[in-house]
Amino acid sequence: MSDLFDDGEIVAEGIIQADILQQWVDTLRALVHESKVHFTDGGIRASVVSPSNVCMYPTAELSKQAFESFDAPGEVNIGVNLDALDERLGSANSDDLVRFGVDMEKRMFRIQYRQIEHEMALIDPDAIRQEPDTPDLDLPNYVELEAEYLDDAMSNIDLVSDHVRVTNTDDEFVIEGQGDTDRAALSFDGDDCRRLEVPEDVESLFSLSFLVDVVKPIPSDTVVSIRYGDEFPTWWEYDLFDETMHVEMMLAPRIQSD
Amino acid sequence: MSDLFDDGEIVAEGIIQADILQQWVDTLRALVHESKVHFTDGGIRASVVSPSNVCMYPTAELSKQAFESFDAPGEVNIGVNLDALDERLGSANSDDLVRFGVDMEKRMFRIQYRQIEHEMALIDPDAIRQEPDTPDLDLPNYVELEAEYLDDAMSNIDLVSDHVRVTNTDDEFVIEGQGDTDRAALSFDGDDCRRLEVPEDVESLFSLSFLVDVVKPIPSDTVVSIRYGDEFPTWWEYDLFDETMHVEMMLAPRIQSD
Amino acid sequence: MSDLFDDGEIVAEGIIQADILQQWVDTLRALVHESKVHFTDGGIRASVVSPSNVCMYPTAELSKQAFESFDAPGEVNIGVNLDALDERLGSANSDDLVRFGVDMEKRMFRIQYRQIEHEMALIDPDAIRQEPDTPDLDLPNYVELEAEYLDDAMSNIDLVSDHVRVTNTDDEFVIEGQGDTDRAALSFDGDDCRRLEVPEDVESLFSLSFLVDVVKPIPSDTVVSIRYGDEFPTWWEYDLFDETMHVEMMLAPRIQSD
Repeated sequence: MSDLFDDGEIVAEGIIQADILQQWVDTLRALVHESKVHFTDGGIRASVVSPSNVCMYPTAELSKQAFESFDAPGEVNIGVNLDALDERLGSANSDDLVRFGVDMEKRMFRIQYRQIEHEMALIDPDAIRQEPDTPDLDLPNYVELEAEYLDDAMSNIDLVSDHVRVTNTDDEFVIEGQGDTDRAALSFDGDDCRRLEVPEDVESLFSLSFLVDVVKPIPSDTVVSIRYGDEFPTWWEYDLFDETMHVEMMLAPRIQSD
Repeated sequence: MSDLFDDGEIVAEGIIQADILQQWVDTLRALVHESKVHFTDGGIRASVVSPSNVCMYPTAELSKQAFESFDAPGEVNIGVNLDALDERLGSANSDDLVRFGVDMEKRMFRIQYRQIEHEMALIDPDAIRQEPDTPDLDLPNYVELEAEYLDDAMSNIDLVSDHVRVTNTDDEFVIEGQGDTDRAALSFDGDDCRRLEVPEDVESLFSLSFLVDVVKPIPSDTVVSIRYGDEFPTWWEYDLFDETMHVEMMLAPRIQSD
Repeated sequence: MSDLFDDGEIVAEGIIQADILQQWVDTLRALVHESKVHFTDGGIRASVVSPSNVCMYPTAELSKQAFESFDAPGEVNIGVNLDALDERLGSANSDDLVRFGVDMEKRMFRIQYRQIEHEMALIDPDAIRQEPDTPDLDLPNYVELEAEYLDDAMSNIDLVSDHVRVTNTDDEFVIEGQGDTDRAALSFDGDDCRRLEVPEDVESLFSLSFLVDVVKPIPSDTVVSIRYGDEFPTWWEYDLFDETMHVEMMLAPRIQSD
């Protein structure tokens, strides 16, 4: 072990299992290449929005309990190149312990696992796209569904359309796509869903590409909570790693022209 | 389950294990992108020829016994986009049960497995290339060989030539390719072949590319019956899934110029 | 089995397990596409240098003991297209026995495994790049390290730089890369290394791309002996298959401009 963490001004540091850090990075990279990251005594958190302002993670956070050890005395805000961090985790096995530290003096993010050490230049947070405002939403319908079903939905709808219609009958949640001639639809009843509370017959249309990107990193057995309304944004939430990682996702609807 | 099969005019329908339907689609796609498909009370059948007229499947059929259930009251002839059908089976696990139906009113082919439903527009059969006439052939030599050997032959001959010579000695069946300097040859004796009946010393030359495409979808332990003669087409047959799928393949020879 | 080896003037022949021959071919192909190959009663040997003269294998040899059988009555020197040989071994399973023979009359290299036979034209040895002279080197520092660590080093340094600095402290062997802002370093102490004899604090800089190519074919658990000095070439050696394959590698340093 070198003295990677012995010099400089380390203002926040910790140790985390590689697969947990990788999952958090993969999630954010579905929408952005770089992100502001906030270290507090409760853990780390990011809030990002796609360049088009259509899709956002109001929060993607790792609580202190996600870490083997975690030390951030005050609030620390840095800018991280997520693509570079992803590359530097590329040799890690899922159960490798990754040690990291924020050096504010040299403006470096440092990580180390096995015999591998990396120093990555921080990005000036002011040069990163501003964090999104989250609208207040009152969405009537609520579904809990395993991510595997969402993956099925997006990959099949992708064959016929660029848009996804989220809707329901009285007793089924329906995700569908309509092409010029062909149609794909996935229907989930009370047995398929963990919860299915659809008091209103509503529908909203969304861009498929964001949903493909957002669903891809979610492990297949993760239960995703989905709220939606009538031509309203959809709001998703899920937890991972014994609820030590929490993700919220919001996607604006496409206006239906018919 | 939605009412995918409850409306429209369903004139033929059935349930089949995904890997069986996929195998049949893969087979046809070796030569064509779309096909006429005939539903009769005995099962489904297609007969296709390559655009160049060089290679054909005189028949590729799934008997009624290949299906979990099958209902085609009269003869129904439809045109199917095989590439699209292949894509729509892409999420199926090999043991998923695929329900399908032909809706002649809406001119749709419908499939459903797990929570996934697809409606695919049928193609006008008259817009599809005509089915081939099969010549009468009297081919003297007969060999039965596992597809794994044929795959070895095509992938190795591919390294030296675009053509395949099929020939034999008194006690060996030989598949070979001759390049400008290099040569590849595969020799199969009575131990390698299930049957080896080669009364005549004959040879025929074929385009490698068709054989590569035709061999690719055949499971490696499938026994393929091969008939060939002297500068004659070669005729292959094989059965799959307890003989509920039957395939015949004919490839015209290349004229040897020496 | 055909009479592939019964005609022609076979001046050297043998039988070898496919994975051993493949390993030897993969090794040489890291630097060159074709090679002179020397058959002696002790085995086969090649000595090659990269087109740029920067990296060489002073020797990559398979001793007679690497073969199931080996017969080379006198010294035979041939030119072999390694890329073509690699392709022709492509269908071999690792434990297939590969029979080979050098036919000096037809100027062919012949190989056979399972039912597969190949004749490959030999290359005129005079048309192949001359074999390298190996300089005498007196390198002070010596390390033994598993190839897995070298693979980690090259893939991580590749993220930040085109150059690799090989250096050490009193008790650690260090491989590192320095980019414009980012840095990657791998440090190996006495526990990581099989042997660590670094009497001098020295360093040399090397082109990463050669090291990536050279490390890639080495099985991950292979112990590699590394000698290096101060702005001197580095000299690597390793053995495989119970020391029946022996490889020496030398890489010239890049001159450091600071």
